[in-house]
Amino acid sequence: MSVYSIGVDLGGTNLRVSAYSADRGLFGLIQLPTRIRDGRDAVIDDMCEAISRLIARYSSEYTLAGIGIGTPGPLELPVGRIHAPPNLPGWDGFELREAIEGRLNRFVVLECDANAAALAECVAGQGKSFGIDSLCMLTLGTGVGNGIILKGEVWHGINGMAGEAGHATVWPDGLACGCGSRGCLEMYASATAAQRAAEQAVANKTSSGLSALWQKNPEFTTKDVFEVARSGDPVARAIFDKVGEALGIELAALINTLNLPLYVVGGGLASAWELFSESMFREIRHRSYVYRFTEPDTLFPLEAEPGKTYVVQAELGTNSGILGACLLPLASKEQPAEVIASAGNA
Amino acid sequence: MSVYSIGVDLGGTNLRVSAYSADRGLFGLIQLPTRIRDGRDAVIDDMCEAISRLIARYSSEYTLAGIGIGTPGPLELPVGRIHAPPNLPGWDGFELREAIEGRLNRFVVLECDANAAALAECVAGQGKSFGIDSLCMLTLGTGVGNGIILKGEVWHGINGMAGEAGHATVWPDGLACGCGSRGCLEMYASATAAQRAAEQAVANKTSSGLSALWQKNPEFTTKDVFEVARSGDPVARAIFDKVGEALGIELAALINTLNLPLYVVGGGLASAWELFSESMFREIRHRSYVYRFTEPDTLFPLEAEPGKTYVVQAELGTNSGILGACLLPLASKEQPAEVIASAGNA
Repeated sequence: MSVYSIGVDLGGTNLRVSAYSADRGLFGLIQLPTRIRDGRDAVIDDMCEAISRLIARYSSEYTLAGIGIGTPGPLELPVGRIHAPPNLPGWDGFELREAIEGRLNRFVVLECDANAAALAECVAGQGKSFGIDSLCMLTLGTGVGNGIILKGEVWHGINGMAGEAGHATVWPDGLACGCGSRGCLEMYASATAAQRAAEQAVANKTSSGLSALWQKNPEFTTKDVFEVARSGDPVARAIFDKVGEALGIELAALINTLNLPLYVVGGGLASAWELFSESMFREIRHRSYVYRFTEPDTLFPLEAEPGKTYVVQAELGTNSGILGACLLPLASKEQPAEVIASAGNA
Repeated sequence: MSVYSIGVDLGGTNLRVSAYSADRGLFGLIQLPTRIRDGRDAVIDDMCEAISRLIARYSSEYTLAGIGIGTPGPLELPVGRIHAPPNLPGWDGFELREAIEGRLNRFVVLECDANAAALAECVAGQGKSFGIDSLCMLTLGTGVGNGIILKGEVWHGINGMAGEAGHATVWPDGLACGCGSRGCLEMYASATAAQRAAEQAVANKTSSGLSALWQKNPEFTTKDVFEVARSGDPVARAIFDKVGEALGIELAALINTLNLPLYVVGGGLASAWELFSESMFREIRHRSYVYRFTEPDTLFPLEAEPGKTYVVQAELGTNSGILGACLLPLASKEQPAEVIASAGNA
């Protein structure tokens, strides 16, 4: 019997649970609202029920490798404890892995959502396209997530907290960040940061385009800001220039430090690539002689050239989180023996 | 027969060649001036002659695992090509490994000197003391060198240029650096940077202590500046505070990104640890919640506590470069078969 896995993408808004096999890809997706207000146990109940439904549906066809769960970070590993996630109030200190393993009696791998997305991008996205098994991914969303994959494996560091480059300092005297520091990357390169800058422009009346947008729709999003910038509004364009500048400064440091072959920018704000990539690459070239030495002739090669550094937009969209979660138990070296045996027979 | 190796520390001033075995440590050290003005071939001749003398002296007692050479970076691997080293004019593009392998017909491993020092610190210095096999080392000398060791091995990246955190941006609009960027760590945390700041204070007459030092000895060094700072001169103290601030900002980013158990600060300027460590730790705590979460109770534990982040002064002194060079062929997975067989019999 061939092997499948079940992945859970635990977000602040949605709870998504899906089955996955190498042959079929994602299948049987269940999407529910995350019932945060009903308390942690309600969310755990929903999660376990959805997982059990998928197990019941597919256990005659496949052997279950295990369950992968991607959660908002920070996450303490190997114990699998969630720490003070801003989108999951009341979950601080909760040992999620143990809770699910105990309830379902199945092999569970827990991972920070940014790491899960990076793993997916490596195995099934840009990593696969480039034929490269090491990458660093920045996910531009509410914050700036970060995951590092070295030789096909998530780099966890000593307790699962590696990949917090979203809180690397970009401007030491910059904006105060919720993490306690100042000038963190995510204060400039997250969707939240772009939104805040646009709202400031509206409040200060510095942009006719953004003011017009606000009059039409006071609940505008960064997608709308993107359209205003695309239409040529200089203040809106400057918002994305700043995103690119911050990204470029940090990516240059990452390139100089890690010398990886591939850096991927994903998350909702990454769709504004055409607006921020110019200033991003300008900073990367300026600040990283390692990049200048390894810059490829094209970002879209038929085949990745060895020894070159590629900085590209993520290939997978909103499914990268759930796909990464599904890949976790399959990539894990801690799989139970019967799963490994079954995979060998597949 | 037990195995030994030969290490070469190719510096801009001195050329040091030594034998090494696990039992004896370093032995048979040969130190020569690096005859840079006589041209590259003269230096290569000196190097090969010294290596041959050691081989002739010890080949009846030991089996040679290979020759390790630590050179100023940047270095392109795996080809073993030196790139534009400021202290070795005329060496740009030189394929040093091939040259030595061709001349001596022995297994040669080439490594950037900062990586060699980090490997030594990991195997025989603080890594050994803490029982930890992954670390990030910053070497504060003429520039700021950087080496990353993951699970006992040098992390090279795609072409040997990993570990250039000396050129990570600390202050984006800061001082222009020779690498083409601005505000690099090494513009603030190298011995050169401390020296420059002291000379500026003398020129601007802002420090009575440094002015008195200059009158006594216009050729003063950072060691003298250290003594002036220790005696309480506020301007001299501020120089080391700035070193610590820059180090702390970058170390916080490295801790957030890599989540390694051990960060080591070495090189000549590291002896000023008591003067810069206060501002360094202040910035690390301020800017890295990963550090705050993993800060140990003491930096001098009897045994390293798992899951904690240690930031410490290097244990090995000026010998770390040559020791690291000696360890390279022993740690290499590309050892010739007869060496591996011999090591098995040792």
